[in-house]
Amino acid sequence: MVEKTSLTESELQDKLKELAPEWKAEKNEKGLDIIERVYRAKKFMEGIDFVQKVAEAAEANNHHPDIFINYKRITVRYWTHSSSGVTLADVQMAQKIDPLFDK
Amino acid sequence: MVEKTSLTESELQDKLKELAPEWKAEKNEKGLDIIERVYRAKKFMEGIDFVQKVAEAAEANNHHPDIFINYKRITVRYWTHSSSGVTLADVQMAQKIDPLFDK
Repeated sequence: MVEKTSLTESELQDKLKELAPEWKAEKNEKGLDIIERVYRAKKFMEGIDFVQKVAEAAEANNHHPDIFINYKRITVRYWTHSSSGVTLADVQMAQKIDPLFDK
Repeated sequence: MVEKTSLTESELQDKLKELAPEWKAEKNEKGLDIIERVYRAKKFMEGIDFVQKVAEAAEANNHHPDIFINYKRITVRYWTHSSSGVTLADVQMAQKIDPLFDK
C-alpha cells in the first residue's frame, strides 16, 4: 500500500506544496517527520466543534492525528506511526480536514 | 478573589490530596506549576466525547485547560495564566471534570 511508505524529504517538500501554506513539516521530539497546522478559531467552542469534525474524519479514515487545544488555538499534527514518518495518507488527511475549518 | 492567588508549593501538595490520585503537579516548559491528568478512553470517539464535555464545563466556568489528544489518551492540564501558577480555581475545575469521564 503506497500510502504506508514514508515520504523522502524531497517528496515531502513537493507534497507540502499541494497543501495550504499553513501546513508545516517539522520534526517531533523523537526527530521523526510530522506535518502540523495551527488553526485559530474565533471562539473557544468553535474550535471544539472543529476538533469534533476532525475526530469524525479521523475515525472514518482510521487515521488519527494528535490534536492540541490551547484555548482558541488548535494544533493538528499528522504522521504515520507504523512508518515512523509522513506518508501520503497524512497528506490526504490534511487535505480532508482543511475544509472542515470555518474561518 | 481568593481563587486567583497562586497556591504555594505546600498548599498545592495539600490540595492535590483532595483530587483523584491521577492528578499530578508538574512544571510546564516555562517552569510554572500546572496540574495534569491523563485519561485513557476505551475508544477514540469516547475520548472525544469526554473532550467535548470538558470543553463545555470549561466554557461554563470561563476557565479553559490545555487538552492534548493522542488517540485514546487525553491529557488535561490546568493552571491559571493570570497568576502564573495553580490556583484554587484549577483544583475546582479538576474536581468538576473528573465525574465527566466514563470509565
